[in-house]
Amino acid sequence: MSKRNLQVCMSPALFDLYADRKSIVVVVDVLRATSTMCIAFETGIEKMIPVSTVEEALEYRSTNPDYVLAAERNGAAVRGFDFGNSPQYYLDHDMSGKTIVMTTTNGTKSIGIAKKDHEVIIGSLLNLDAISKWLIQQDRDVLIFCAGWKDKFNLEDTLFAGALAQNLVDSNLYDNSCDATQAAQVLWEKGKDDLFAFLDNSSHRKRLAKLNIDSDINFCLKINQTTKIPILKGDILVALDAC
Amino acid sequence: MSKRNLQVCMSPALFDLYADRKSIVVVVDVLRATSTMCIAFETGIEKMIPVSTVEEALEYRSTNPDYVLAAERNGAAVRGFDFGNSPQYYLDHDMSGKTIVMTTTNGTKSIGIAKKDHEVIIGSLLNLDAISKWLIQQDRDVLIFCAGWKDKFNLEDTLFAGALAQNLVDSNLYDNSCDATQAAQVLWEKGKDDLFAFLDNSSHRKRLAKLNIDSDINFCLKINQTTKIPILKGDILVALDAC
Repeated sequence: MSKRNLQVCMSPALFDLYADRKSIVVVVDVLRATSTMCIAFETGIEKMIPVSTVEEALEYRSTNPDYVLAAERNGAAVRGFDFGNSPQYYLDHDMSGKTIVMTTTNGTKSIGIAKKDHEVIIGSLLNLDAISKWLIQQDRDVLIFCAGWKDKFNLEDTLFAGALAQNLVDSNLYDNSCDATQAAQVLWEKGKDDLFAFLDNSSHRKRLAKLNIDSDINFCLKINQTTKIPILKGDILVALDAC
Repeated sequence: MSKRNLQVCMSPALFDLYADRKSIVVVVDVLRATSTMCIAFETGIEKMIPVSTVEEALEYRSTNPDYVLAAERNGAAVRGFDFGNSPQYYLDHDMSGKTIVMTTTNGTKSIGIAKKDHEVIIGSLLNLDAISKWLIQQDRDVLIFCAGWKDKFNLEDTLFAGALAQNLVDSNLYDNSCDATQAAQVLWEKGKDDLFAFLDNSSHRKRLAKLNIDSDINFCLKINQTTKIPILKGDILVALDAC
């Protein structure tokens, strides 16, 4: 039996090289967009609409005043929006049944790129095992898509890619010949015992530290806090178990 | 004293994100273009003209019949050219004083991209310590530029990037906050004791194995076989110690 294809794309700028119109794409932006999406569904939101621009987000609300707007640029909440990109907001507020419109620097942009030709699910360390198990149940190729930072490689998304790739490869169902996948696994093996320390000198942790959100980082680096898997249906994310 | 900037660019498609018009760019294509360039100068060639296309190479010879033409595409020598991309050719023939015009799938393309706005030198495992020592002597920022494979990430070039980065960081003169640089160092640390085994499952080693050139791969993974550093002057590579 031929094995399923497994690839890691390390940057949105490289996505076209890995896109094959058939893989399930797992979009990851560990700090913090996709972590926040996963925990948002855990806290009971009904749906989330990821958009690429602040203007699109505002347009959604102009026709849907009940929608909650979340916007982040360069790590901070955008002025005039209900909140930014922090998972903590969802833990501190009753979000049951809400619809969130979210735009972020990297994560929602990557979703926009991937959705054109691929089925898209949302990954983070918070739902690592749930994603792994679900993917193994599908007879499909997988492309793990790191959102990076403004098209640059970043460590935290690649760490997640390595963790997920390792789980998939351990099932013996996936081919492991993609160089980027192998590199991600090496990083995960090196970093997994203390993710916070491994990312100590990373560019984005430094960027966020200036904003005093170490607690967000700590939260986003926790493994298996939810079994929710956000999946894109058209332009809208819903929880897979609610489909 | 502020430290020198040190970056790794993992793909030609990402180069513009890392380019700063002031760093010395070290172009690397371990299998096999830049390894072959380094050993070509060790065997006594006078100069090498890296070009992006087969057509450019042919044009050079039409006006310079003494030039030797080397062309590789997808791992194999191009029909009608004197030879391809193998370091072995230089070891087996008397190349003293020759001028080589070379075009390859990834390496010469990357040189073409980098030379527009940056000083360019050529790196490989074969001249690792020579490059490291020379860079440390310069008071300049450094950008290690992996040629990759058709714009995709590859393992062997990133391994070299990690080796060179580690040597530079050990000098305590360079800032080590670039995520890609840190990742490359982790890969080098993991792979350095047995590079051939580390690359066992890599995409390009598999690609070359089909062409029966394991001996070339073995050669390109040897460390410190030459102190020659090819440097680009205008459009022409010469040996740094001959400048």
